[in-house]
Amino acid sequence: MRCHLLHLEEEEEEEEQDPLAVNYGEVPLPDLQSVLVRGRAQAIRAVGKKMAFVAVRERGFTVQCVVTEQEGSVSRQMVKFVASLNRESIVDVRGTLTLPSSPMKGASQPSPPSPINLEDAARSEAEIEKALQLVRVNQDARLNFRVLDIRTPANQGIFRIQSQVGNAVLVILRLFEIHTPKLIAGSSEGGSAVFKLDYKGRPTCLAQSPQLHKQMSICGDFGRVFEIGPVFRAEDSYTQRHLCEFTGLDVEMEIKKYYFEVMDIMDQLFVAMFDSLNVSCKKELEAIGRQYPFEPLKYLRKTLRLTFQEGFQMLKDAGVEIDPLGDLNTEVERKLGQLILEKYGTEFYILRHYPLAVRPFYTMLCYDNPAYSNSFDVFSRGEEIISGAQRVHVPEFLTKRAESCGIDVKTIETYIDSFRYGAPPHGGFGAGLERVVMLFCGLNNIRKTSLFPRDPLRISPREDLVVMVL
Amino acid sequence: MRCHLLHLEEEEEEEEQDPLAVNYGEVPLPDLQSVLVRGRAQAIRAVGKKMAFVAVRERGFTVQCVVTEQEGSVSRQMVKFVASLNRESIVDVRGTLTLPSSPMKGASQPSPPSPINLEDAARSEAEIEKALQLVRVNQDARLNFRVLDIRTPANQGIFRIQSQVGNAVLVILRLFEIHTPKLIAGSSEGGSAVFKLDYKGRPTCLAQSPQLHKQMSICGDFGRVFEIGPVFRAEDSYTQRHLCEFTGLDVEMEIKKYYFEVMDIMDQLFVAMFDSLNVSCKKELEAIGRQYPFEPLKYLRKTLRLTFQEGFQMLKDAGVEIDPLGDLNTEVERKLGQLILEKYGTEFYILRHYPLAVRPFYTMLCYDNPAYSNSFDVFSRGEEIISGAQRVHVPEFLTKRAESCGIDVKTIETYIDSFRYGAPPHGGFGAGLERVVMLFCGLNNIRKTSLFPRDPLRISPREDLVVMVL
Repeated sequence: MRCHLLHLEEEEEEEEQDPLAVNYGEVPLPDLQSVLVRGRAQAIRAVGKKMAFVAVRERGFTVQCVVTEQEGSVSRQMVKFVASLNRESIVDVRGTLTLPSSPMKGASQPSPPSPINLEDAARSEAEIEKALQLVRVNQDARLNFRVLDIRTPANQGIFRIQSQVGNAVLVILRLFEIHTPKLIAGSSEGGSAVFKLDYKGRPTCLAQSPQLHKQMSICGDFGRVFEIGPVFRAEDSYTQRHLCEFTGLDVEMEIKKYYFEVMDIMDQLFVAMFDSLNVSCKKELEAIGRQYPFEPLKYLRKTLRLTFQEGFQMLKDAGVEIDPLGDLNTEVERKLGQLILEKYGTEFYILRHYPLAVRPFYTMLCYDNPAYSNSFDVFSRGEEIISGAQRVHVPEFLTKRAESCGIDVKTIETYIDSFRYGAPPHGGFGAGLERVVMLFCGLNNIRKTSLFPRDPLRISPREDLVVMVL
Repeated sequence: MRCHLLHLEEEEEEEEQDPLAVNYGEVPLPDLQSVLVRGRAQAIRAVGKKMAFVAVRERGFTVQCVVTEQEGSVSRQMVKFVASLNRESIVDVRGTLTLPSSPMKGASQPSPPSPINLEDAARSEAEIEKALQLVRVNQDARLNFRVLDIRTPANQGIFRIQSQVGNAVLVILRLFEIHTPKLIAGSSEGGSAVFKLDYKGRPTCLAQSPQLHKQMSICGDFGRVFEIGPVFRAEDSYTQRHLCEFTGLDVEMEIKKYYFEVMDIMDQLFVAMFDSLNVSCKKELEAIGRQYPFEPLKYLRKTLRLTFQEGFQMLKDAGVEIDPLGDLNTEVERKLGQLILEKYGTEFYILRHYPLAVRPFYTMLCYDNPAYSNSFDVFSRGEEIISGAQRVHVPEFLTKRAESCGIDVKTIETYIDSFRYGAPPHGGFGAGLERVVMLFCGLNNIRKTSLFPRDPLRISPREDLVVMVL
């Protein structure tokens, strides 16, 4: 066996010259030899001075390696070198593969240099509760050492699934992908939840959504578009389900006849996406479930569509009284989710035809009942993950709607002007990628599905790179 | 023929009641009738008071419609209504499809309400120069009325191709897609080219590249990752090839043996992408070429790889003397591109093994000649579009490199710390999506390939939406 150590934290002590030194040690950096296994030293154990075990992990898989003193190839110093490896070091191992006579029972190391022990970080609550002496790695420690944390099987699974969700949008829908600007001129009088910056003396802010530009793309005859990109909300939200930067998944499209077409696209996309995740990410879902147990999301072949009024009635029948023209709060949404699961056997459904009063002024109203709107929300496990609607595409009518909502029309001239040169009927929807993944996997905190989450208390790691990028 | 007008700028004058009014007019908004053609009124012409022609465009295609006074179905008022349509209005037309006895020769309208005439916006320079009375729509007017401008066949082609480039990255590489944060804590002492903002009293800036986070993903054992997302540079660049916000296309990957693996992935990706664009976007490329004539990009099945020294020698042989350990300027790059095209018949090639002194400190040096680095640039039509390298993954060595480049190591602690818990050898590359498309299509200005370009003089349209988004 040869062991090439690519990464070593501490300097080795001065030692006697080893005539077999050529068989191990630090690799001359760029000139790697042919190798059999490269992975991380997950656990290291010495047995006396003549033998050492190393469990080498390469993503989900582990190989047990053993080095034994042997004249002419393995020196005692080599055994010592191996036994003193730091956990999580990357090692190259060339050796003979055999079935172990007995499984490796344990491994220990006096002072692990890594601030998070991966075995601790990968345990489920149930395991931790069963054995009281185990370390619980809290969310903050995980995020402080995210490069270590994201190596756990559950995290590898979560971000593989996140990646697959993005792929699915592209592969299933085959729409026109756009990239809209995030730097937006404007002093943003109205919004406190906006990130403001100054660019050459002009007030500028960060886009809170691609709403304006995706609608402009439709006015530019792009037909059907989607965008996956960052969305910025400077909100003071300290909940388990809000971030101040997240990944927006936005669709906008021409409508031929009715806003049901938008729901059809959403339906087709998400059912196909869930199907594909269940098939292609089976192992990832299992890995997540081992640490964070959850039941697979229950969804129907064709997504259930209830009107807001039907939802209202179900709640009323269950003794929950709400304003028939008001919005649902989080608690009521969860209750409705529960009622719908019991009655229809699905945790994924559409609530459509929302009261006009609780939707943005640019939402198209229902032709036959202007107290309601051509809009919908989509729920997963009782929480809203998607919001969609037909938009008002006629500038004169948009102006009227803004006025009747008490908006100073002068402040939204750019938006209204976008529809002055002929705008087709259109609609769309927006989802948050992190929330979609969180609720598909039944996770309890959106920070678990954001690679480097940003919230009002965390905008790190720091950016050192401003001095580095050429 | 029925004509449903969905959008009308000016109020109609008061007129006598039309008994056939039911056969035309504005559509009750959400309740559209079954239609045959929906498109834009591109050109309108009245022939006396009894007949009118309308050319209706749906993306690339045009249908000529004719309405003639006819007792019981078409009134004179209807003909007048059609003749007074605004250009670029969206119309629904139900009628009988026939071959025209003679082609529509012209169309006129006294005062087009749309600030850009699409026929003007779609003309090539050659056409404009041939006929001096034609209007030239300049770049600024185009960007001021981008919703109109992007309807030209060339622009429809450009953004379809941009969309396909993104698809290609995903479909060809099948890597792990990540979404890294754009909000980065830090006061960014070193960089003037950074957008700064203040978030709850903490200095924050916008990511200039996903460099740190994509490398952290590799340290987190993600293997091979890519990201397509916005990149922000507050530079004072007023060139044809710089934007202050563009779409970065970034790849980062573990290296098994040598940095050639990174070039292999780049090579495989771009050759397959160019092949796929040439096949699947044939019509789009033709549409672009009609307005902005260009020769197809010349590239080889396996991308040519020259060392910096070979490039140096070619330039020297052609009488161009440069510093053998310095960088190439834009002019020299173009000259080298020309020499390589003549000698090797390709406009797409890799120049590798750059002098270490002209690359960022985190670039891995060549093991056998530390004056050079394991890095490369890729050129398309004589301009750099991709920059890549192996990175230094050993924190102690990274510290030394930073010091020898005169960087205060304290300011880049976060970056160096990311490699302390075991980092595999790795490398990657970054490209700008807009520049890739610009040079593939031989365009002369990067604003042509950015949907809503941002440069030091333009951060508009304004953001009205801060008051609108719920």
